[in-house]
Amino acid sequence: MQSSCLEALCDVNSPPSRAVLLLLKCNNIPVQMLEIKRTPKLEREYSSEIPDTMPYPAIIDHEKRLHLTGSSAILRYLCARFELADHWYPRDIVARAKVDEYIAWHDANTKVAAASVYKLRIVQPKRMHIPVNEEELRRARSRLDHVLHQLVVTFLKDKDFLCSNEITIADVLAICELAQAVASGFAIGDGRPRLLAWIERVKGQLPDFEKVHGSMEVKKPFRWLSMDSAM
Amino acid sequence: MQSSCLEALCDVNSPPSRAVLLLLKCNNIPVQMLEIKRTPKLEREYSSEIPDTMPYPAIIDHEKRLHLTGSSAILRYLCARFELADHWYPRDIVARAKVDEYIAWHDANTKVAAASVYKLRIVQPKRMHIPVNEEELRRARSRLDHVLHQLVVTFLKDKDFLCSNEITIADVLAICELAQAVASGFAIGDGRPRLLAWIERVKGQLPDFEKVHGSMEVKKPFRWLSMDSAM
Repeated sequence: MQSSCLEALCDVNSPPSRAVLLLLKCNNIPVQMLEIKRTPKLEREYSSEIPDTMPYPAIIDHEKRLHLTGSSAILRYLCARFELADHWYPRDIVARAKVDEYIAWHDANTKVAAASVYKLRIVQPKRMHIPVNEEELRRARSRLDHVLHQLVVTFLKDKDFLCSNEITIADVLAICELAQAVASGFAIGDGRPRLLAWIERVKGQLPDFEKVHGSMEVKKPFRWLSMDSAM
Repeated sequence: MQSSCLEALCDVNSPPSRAVLLLLKCNNIPVQMLEIKRTPKLEREYSSEIPDTMPYPAIIDHEKRLHLTGSSAILRYLCARFELADHWYPRDIVARAKVDEYIAWHDANTKVAAASVYKLRIVQPKRMHIPVNEEELRRARSRLDHVLHQLVVTFLKDKDFLCSNEITIADVLAICELAQAVASGFAIGDGRPRLLAWIERVKGQLPDFEKVHGSMEVKKPFRWLSMDSAM
């Protein structure tokens, strides 16, 4: 493969983009990165090539003449295309089904819950100057708590990772969305030792985790566990 | 395989359940069907075995000791487990990636748009006796129109089906969600001849389509195309 055959369009402020970035980086997949910010100009530029409702992340595999969007589709494709270690997205049909099950749940739960608190605590007040709606925030926080509980009792259980004892693409998608909640000021590890241990295990498998997340446009300290139990 | 090794828990009023039912039926997969209605008793009964936030559809594969939820995970698993014809979920990594791309988009677009109009026009007024909120319905209708447009211009294009020239699990998921919009009174085929032609092609590949959808709890006539252009 030529090193330039794969391009990735990512916005480091988008959790699905960070998931794609991390899988690429920790597997040393040669790629030309187009780290972009969402701007009307860029959106116009790419709108003819990729579905307009989810432009990023996207990959362009020139050798296969493929434009692909959707983080879960991209992660699955990268595993197959570059024959990554089996644990990322197992070939065994039962093990693979459990990863697919988490991803189906993720999109309607982890992703929505983390995005809601980020919108209410960061996007609206910091960028749009809309005051925080405390009642909406309370409901969003409650949903997030439920998701965190489910991650522990339904998925993690007594395993090391969400779908097996090795890291899968499900863990990568999950941790990148949960980072939105952390960036919103929620120390999601507080009172959840099993979740916190999982976070540390996932980070241990993703050497570029801190670097990628350090590039986010978040001003407050990025903490999974709050030493002063604030929030 | 013994005919009783697979059980499926489905609620015919849920689009993801109908998608699983249709794939099972049109491939003659031996299965013990548990067609259920969501009741507190049943939810308690199964809650220890399946993630509590998405109990249906679910399959139980006794031979593989697998409980699996999430319609897209189940459809992928059935394709692999019963080695269904390749067109349903192609082994070719590029063709498969396009199916995965649609499914990722589906969950945040087709599904949400169709569920919104169904909730506003059927669930709230008919079951909960909440009057229709016309402004919310207008926004939901507008979102549905956008989704229908995207289905035609971004996915269908000049192909026979959403992801290729043969039917895939993406088409099955899509048509079952769109049936919610039809059941809500929107003749989604009006003014969209390419969408309507696709609907007919999909139905032609799913012999049990009318039977499964005829079991839905919907009182009004089920029409993809309105002869009187009502709505």
